[in-house]
Amino acid sequence: MDNFEFESPTHFAFGRESERRTGALVKAFGGSKALLHFGGGSVKASGVYDKVVASLDEAGVGFVPLGGVRPNPREALIREGIDLVRREKIDFVLAVGGGSVIDSAKAIAFGALYEGDFRDYTFGKDCKKPPVVPAALPIGAVLTIAAAGSEGSANCIVSLEPDNLKRTITGDKLRPRFAVMNPEFTFTLPPYQTACGLVDIFAHVVERYFTPTRDVMATDELCEALMRTVVAESAVVMRDPADYPARANIMWAGTLAHNNVCGVGRAQDWASHGIEHELSALYDCAHGAGLAVVMPAWMEFVMPADVGRFARFAEKVWGVASGDPASMAKEGLARYRAWIKSLGMPTTLAELGARSEDIPLLAANLGLRDGQTLGAFRPLTTADVEAILRLCALKGNR
Amino acid sequence: MDNFEFESPTHFAFGRESERRTGALVKAFGGSKALLHFGGGSVKASGVYDKVVASLDEAGVGFVPLGGVRPNPREALIREGIDLVRREKIDFVLAVGGGSVIDSAKAIAFGALYEGDFRDYTFGKDCKKPPVVPAALPIGAVLTIAAAGSEGSANCIVSLEPDNLKRTITGDKLRPRFAVMNPEFTFTLPPYQTACGLVDIFAHVVERYFTPTRDVMATDELCEALMRTVVAESAVVMRDPADYPARANIMWAGTLAHNNVCGVGRAQDWASHGIEHELSALYDCAHGAGLAVVMPAWMEFVMPADVGRFARFAEKVWGVASGDPASMAKEGLARYRAWIKSLGMPTTLAELGARSEDIPLLAANLGLRDGQTLGAFRPLTTADVEAILRLCALKGNR
Repeated sequence: MDNFEFESPTHFAFGRESERRTGALVKAFGGSKALLHFGGGSVKASGVYDKVVASLDEAGVGFVPLGGVRPNPREALIREGIDLVRREKIDFVLAVGGGSVIDSAKAIAFGALYEGDFRDYTFGKDCKKPPVVPAALPIGAVLTIAAAGSEGSANCIVSLEPDNLKRTITGDKLRPRFAVMNPEFTFTLPPYQTACGLVDIFAHVVERYFTPTRDVMATDELCEALMRTVVAESAVVMRDPADYPARANIMWAGTLAHNNVCGVGRAQDWASHGIEHELSALYDCAHGAGLAVVMPAWMEFVMPADVGRFARFAEKVWGVASGDPASMAKEGLARYRAWIKSLGMPTTLAELGARSEDIPLLAANLGLRDGQTLGAFRPLTTADVEAILRLCALKGNR
Repeated sequence: MDNFEFESPTHFAFGRESERRTGALVKAFGGSKALLHFGGGSVKASGVYDKVVASLDEAGVGFVPLGGVRPNPREALIREGIDLVRREKIDFVLAVGGGSVIDSAKAIAFGALYEGDFRDYTFGKDCKKPPVVPAALPIGAVLTIAAAGSEGSANCIVSLEPDNLKRTITGDKLRPRFAVMNPEFTFTLPPYQTACGLVDIFAHVVERYFTPTRDVMATDELCEALMRTVVAESAVVMRDPADYPARANIMWAGTLAHNNVCGVGRAQDWASHGIEHELSALYDCAHGAGLAVVMPAWMEFVMPADVGRFARFAEKVWGVASGDPASMAKEGLARYRAWIKSLGMPTTLAELGARSEDIPLLAANLGLRDGQTLGAFRPLTTADVEAILRLCALKGNR
């Protein structure tokens, strides 16, 4: 087990009607006037927006609304938010939505306090030593989608213009002070979005689980526990979107999958996320859909690096009971692929709207240079990334 | 799944030489002059004390030492600590030791800020609505024993004089701001103390796992993951006390077993802890040893309330592969008992130095009155507690 430092200080208010706690929590964490940040019309149509406003009103917390966050949150709106916060002397950033809204809120909370340009702290090409933000306004989240885990994480992903380059900003100061999590808010998600979330949650565990680090039993067991939970409950919510316990277990698993309790003490990989970010940057596809295509191909490519690890994954997560390690490993991957298909997710580049001719560009966009590699389980060169993307382009029931 | 609120804000610095971070962490959390609280001579003999002092010196943090904490920490020393903190204008309480030292530190950190007597906030007989401490000095911990989980928990247990009544003080303000966790510090523990810790860690999960709440898959899976980890790694450390990965997995499991991530969304039980506290109050036995005697008897007594739950415990934790639920449940309990024996722990009241004739007194000391009951999985009356204690008195290879 590697040395680690870990903190996850977010206060989670979880369950039915937990949104009633929003105003009191903003106040408890020092907010008197909040930026109320949200996306499109769904939080208004669903009534979530009004419930949050009622809670802010009841607590006597003022707010300034800023809607319009799109998936893969854009720089222009972040800059608008930063200006608004400064102009209106806002002291708290409250996100109401999913990962993109929370990520946009985090960038605003940081950018508003930082004297320079917030781009100074974005990184992407070389994750070895990311800059860590020194400060941010307190952030809160009212979660409406179980997926990104941003409600408990220390990161945000933003799309920089004009090229939609996806870049990360990181630091424990970006962890929300609180997250309000009412699983009922996810009942009305379209099945495609629910499925994207499930694939993303699962992927956050996979990126930590496939590691070259040995002897990390506690964390390995936690990873497997959460992956089994996501798979088991996915079948329930795809059948019955209003099943409260299943929605609740998935929502909580989504937080634990990405607050890093599943990643401590070990080298993490993140190659699939890196490759996917180039896909969603170029084609603006949903992150979860991109991962559904990339991650199985990544697994196929890297499996020879540690077949035993994949055999364990097959046994513990997919219930593959017997066989030699190589055949167990393959069967586990086959079941992972079958699960993705069962969710109605895409399985090829073409289904994402991506073109095979762009593969060299996509790989080059990762910007690996001078012997740099991507990932830890099996460090990847640009040529390796191209090979993985070619696997993504293959058709058929892989 | 029940609604819940959860936070675990402690910063964990984990691994070899993590104690070098102590001074910087005290400073980062606002400390300039610390009460350096510890137990007997072991932290001095092992060199841990000197390493911590060196780190404080390097960070320019002053300190006043206060040693002498005994297992089942006593009121007199807590009062001495409170006086010392006030007199010396100390602004941080740093515990170097195991659960008793950290618990004593927590009581001091609360008592020093509270204008009244710290006993105002102790509770024990009726856990329904414990008072929550409003404030405490910041607390840090350098952990030397994997057991109590106090390094990440919101509680402390203290022994009140003159009768050594064990009472709890609770509140998120009591959670340490940081915990320094170097698994090497546990290499030199006597086997008996290692074993007590293993039983205690396992019990912290059991108290949360056996619940009447349904549909809490994520938390159930986490509980089982940690119980399997503790059992698997226990065999390693009993054989080789200096096995770093096993010590590390146990130490981290001990924190996650009790920071309540395993308890969210569900009714918890805590009857075995309640009964054990009366044992260690009367006989001053080690808490883990007391649990080793009480918890299997509690399981035997409450099993009929939900045989299916015990069958799951048998399957997921002890690998009982087949059988009808009742026989699986019994086999699971048999394997739990065998594990306790394999650790060299006591299995009867007599081995604890407890007397069967005290059973009515021990049960009465829980103070259940007017239809009050203990626990949630199977609410217990005073007569039930006596029955459990009679099971504890039985000899033989139970």
